[in-house]
Parts: sequence; structure tokens; C-alpha cells
Amino acid sequence: MYSKEEFVAVHQRIKPFIHHTPVLTSSFIDALVGAKVYFKCENFQKMGAFKMRGAVNAILSLSDEERSKGVVTHSSGNFAQAVALAASQQGVKSFIVMPENAPIVKKRAVEDYGGVVITCESTIEARERTAEAVRKERGASFLHPYNQKEVILGQGTACIEMLEQVDGLNDILVPVGGGGLAGGTAMAAARMSDGLRVYGVEPALVDDASRSLMSGRIESNLHTNTIADGLRTTLGDLTLPILKEHLAAIFLVSEKEIIEALRLIYERMKIVVEPSSAVPLAALIKNKKMFEDRSVGVILSGGNVDLSVFFDAFDK
Amino acid sequence: MYSKEEFVAVHQRIKPFIHHTPVLTSSFIDALVGAKVYFKCENFQKMGAFKMRGAVNAILSLSDEERSKGVVTHSSGNFAQAVALAASQQGVKSFIVMPENAPIVKKRAVEDYGGVVITCESTIEARERTAEAVRKERGASFLHPYNQKEVILGQGTACIEMLEQVDGLNDILVPVGGGGLAGGTAMAAARMSDGLRVYGVEPALVDDASRSLMSGRIESNLHTNTIADGLRTTLGDLTLPILKEHLAAIFLVSEKEIIEALRLIYERMKIVVEPSSAVPLAALIKNKKMFEDRSVGVILSGGNVDLSVFFDAFDK
Repeated sequence: MYSKEEFVAVHQRIKPFIHHTPVLTSSFIDALVGAKVYFKCENFQKMGAFKMRGAVNAILSLSDEERSKGVVTHSSGNFAQAVALAASQQGVKSFIVMPENAPIVKKRAVEDYGGVVITCESTIEARERTAEAVRKERGASFLHPYNQKEVILGQGTACIEMLEQVDGLNDILVPVGGGGLAGGTAMAAARMSDGLRVYGVEPALVDDASRSLMSGRIESNLHTNTIADGLRTTLGDLTLPILKEHLAAIFLVSEKEIIEALRLIYERMKIVVEPSSAVPLAALIKNKKMFEDRSVGVILSGGNVDLSVFFDAFDK
Repeated sequence: MYSKEEFVAVHQRIKPFIHHTPVLTSSFIDALVGAKVYFKCENFQKMGAFKMRGAVNAILSLSDEERSKGVVTHSSGNFAQAVALAASQQGVKSFIVMPENAPIVKKRAVEDYGGVVITCESTIEARERTAEAVRKERGASFLHPYNQKEVILGQGTACIEMLEQVDGLNDILVPVGGGGLAGGTAMAAARMSDGLRVYGVEPALVDDASRSLMSGRIESNLHTNTIADGLRTTLGDLTLPILKEHLAAIFLVSEKEIIEALRLIYERMKIVVEPSSAVPLAALIKNKKMFEDRSVGVILSGGNVDLSVFFDAFDK
């Protein structure tokens, strides 16, 4: 399960469908943290987020017969776009179940990538019911945004690339939402290197993963009003045990700390990232004594963010 | 004057003090324009703009005695920060004359880079008078943001790098403000390659360069209220004849076209640029028939932009 050979094979086969994203550094941030920090820029990934890796791999894993019947998922975020684009690349039909109140731009993005949008009520039950109906009627394969082995393997390939790009990495910090990226990174690090520590980070407002690791059960969040909207989901039954075994720790950060880290990334690195991407840097700054003089990798998860308020200000 | 050997020598000597900035591409923008477009990312340059190149070269060109007496300039924009940082790198004192109503963050940025800020009234006469007084009293060397040969040579080095990074470039588009970047690029292209065409682009609201090329005199602007705040200046007596001889043409673009191009760069390329940087892409989109199937370089001039409205929206 999740062997080194599996990770290497997955990375090889998804390569033609993904970008080999760059690793950036900032001397200002290095000085601020007191460590050497390497940012793996999945904001530059195809469709703008690491989710592309897992979606490509999940669809490549299907049999010819399964591929002929299409794929279905429910998501209003990056996984929706990732499945739509990955399916189109491979000539597979995709059905994306989205809540009727999802922003028009998100529906249009899925359609632009060639996905068929199916709207439903805005409850998790309605989403699951609608996706299940598509699965039954059409025989389409259901793809889960994080609680699926092929997806977790795919997300782990960002870590594999970073290990090739940076020598002597001591630690990696990743954001934790459903645990697909965190789990894939932690497993890949465990298989591909010795002594590399992987830390998860989540907003204190949605600290379900932290509580889940303590209780050993999938805990949920009473409220999900963090600005890191990619991290509002809870863990799955596949990702929880992986995180429990392989994460060195989970850090919590405040909304204020996330916004400050976000601002640093925009102003000092001159790149566009979504708020979830700033969560690991916020933890690094907050806990900098732990990382003094170390080589630290940070996975910037994506760059799909609504900047309308910024552009609208020019139109005044 | 502006020989190939001079450009190569300038590039060699400023290298230790500047970043070798990357060239990025976007398949979305290529498809939109119908050309292969290469973006030279001076937004990733030290202190965030191409101005660093000219400032470094101008200070390196001084004699030891001149260096011991410091440098002075008047600017509230990127050149102020560039001179402050370049002077600090070389152990030279810098005096930056800024209008008293310049934003505090801009004054602080100059001070953070080691420059001494001297405030004056917010008129061009007061700025020139104050800088002249510093020059006389201290014997400091005055550095001009664009109308100075060493500065123009320095700005031309971005083009030299781009020619090394991209094979077979047909055209380059640059924004035109005072003409330092446009002039340096046009001269470097003329000296370093055959048949490469350099186009200037400016906002229609500040079309002084376009009018200056027609009249043969330095024309000014009645209003300077473009969002491309780096391009509000007029040409100088050194830059005008260079542009007249070496630019293939000057394009004008509307504010709306600039904002649309800006939005494309943020949303599709996931990088932070200042509005002036979007001006060439706006012209490329507007005149795409002229550039069909060609290889086109675009210089993204810088990334120093106030994103407060975006970050503040998270704090609501």
C-alpha cells in the first residue's frame, strides 16, 4: 500500500498531463523565519491547484469500459475543475454535481474545461444523492476529492518533485483539508526519504483534523467560516489513519495569521495564491524557533482566488 | 554610443546585484492572442521592478570619489527604492527626495532599503530644487530615473537576457513612461539581433510619447490619471531620439483594456504585477492580427502594487 514503486509509477504516468511546477524562494521570508524556505508552487499547476494531480491519476486508473461511461464527482471547488480538465484531456466525459448557489464563475470554469454541470440543492445530502443517481444511471465512476487511494497517490507527487528539486530538505509543511494532499505528502515523504518530517497545518476555526488525530475518529466542525475556504472539509476514513501515523504534528493558525502570511506571499514573492496556500507559512512564522536554520518545504496548494474587489477598485 | 560591447559589459557587471528573472508563458494567453507570448518577469526583480538594473549600473559607473559622496534622486516610485537598495548594496549613501504627500509605505520602503528620505513640497519644481540643493551641499551625484545613459544601458539588459532565454523572438512589446526601459530595450534589440521589432505601448490617457514621436519635441500630458501610474512621466532629451529611431511603432490602449489585461495576468498566470506591466499585453490583444503566429516578448515591468483593498476585504 502506497509503496515507493507506486508513487514513482504514478508520477511517471501523470507527467504528460500536469505541469512540473517550480520551487521559489524569498530572501526576505528566509530572513524573517530564520530558515531556508522552499515554496512548491502548485498555484502554477494546470487549472491552478494540486488537485489536478489526483484527478489525472484517478481517471488514468480506470479500465477502458469505465472510461467509456464517464466520471462523476460533487464539488464546488478546485476538484470540480480538476476532474473536468483531466477528463477532457483523456477524452472521458465528466459530470460535476454543484450546489445551485455555487458562483456562476465556478460553474463556467467547469464548463470551459469540458465538464457537464449538474446542479442540486445546497446540502451535502442532496449532493451525494445526485452524484449517486448519475453513477447508477450512467454507470459513471465516482471520484472522491480526497478519500480515494488513486487521488492520495496523485497528490503525493508534488512532494516527490520537491525532493528532486531541493537537496537536503528537513521538513515539509502542508495545509490540511480533507487530508488528500497532507496524506499523500506524508506517505510520499515516508517512502522516498529518511527522517523528513511532514507537518499539517489548519485554521484554528476549522480544527477538525487536529481533534480527529486526538480522538481517533472523524470529527466535524461546528462552523466553517475560515477564509481558507479549501480547508473546510473533514477527514475521510482513508486519510485519518495516514495522517495519524505519518504527520509529525498539526499546527493551528488564526485568521489574522493567515492573512498576514497571505500578504507576505503576494507582496514579497509577487505571486497569486488562494488563502489556503498561506496557512503553512503562517504556522512557520508562528513556530519559527522550531525550524531555525532548517531547510523547510512549503506546498502552496493553489491560486484560484476571487480578486474582483481588487480589479473593481480600479474601475471606481 | 550604446554599442553591443557596452550592453554586454553592463550586463556582466550588474549581474551580481540583480536577479536573473524567469520568462513565463501561458497556453491560455497564447490561444487568446494567436501567438507565442513570452513574459519577462521583472516583477520578480530585486525590489520588484526593472528599475533596479539601471540604478545598479548608474552607481557602478561612478568614480570612487563620487561614490564616497553619495547619490541623490527625486522619485516617489520604483526608482526611489531601486536607488536606495542599489546604493546600500555597494556601500554608497543615498538621498531620496520625495513629495511630502507620498504614501508612508513608499517612504518606509526607501528607508528599509537604507535610503535617506528628504521630503519637499509636491511640485516638480520643489523636487528638482531640493535634489539640486543636496547635490551642491554634499557633492552627491544626481541619478535620473530614465534620462541618463548608464540608466538606459542598465534597463536594456532585461532584453539581453530575454534574447538568451528565448530563441527566435520576432517582436518585443514594452511599456513607455520616460523611455528608459523602452529606449534601452530598443537599443539593445537593435545591437544584439537582426530584424527584431520593438513596439512601445502607452495608455491613451497619457499619450505624450506617441505625440512626441510625431512632433519631434517632448510633449507633456494635460492629465495623468491613468491607472498605469508608472507611465505618467514624459520623455527626456536622451530617450526621445532613441525611441524615434528604434521603435517600430507606439500603440495606445484604453484604461478598460489595461484592466482586462491585468486581470488575465493575475488570473491565468497567477503572478502579481503593477498596472503598467499589463499595458503591453493589452496592446497585443488589441492588435493580435499583426502578431499572428509570431514569437512575441513582453516585458512585465514590475510588481509593486497596493493590494490593501484585497487583503482588507478578508478582514471585513
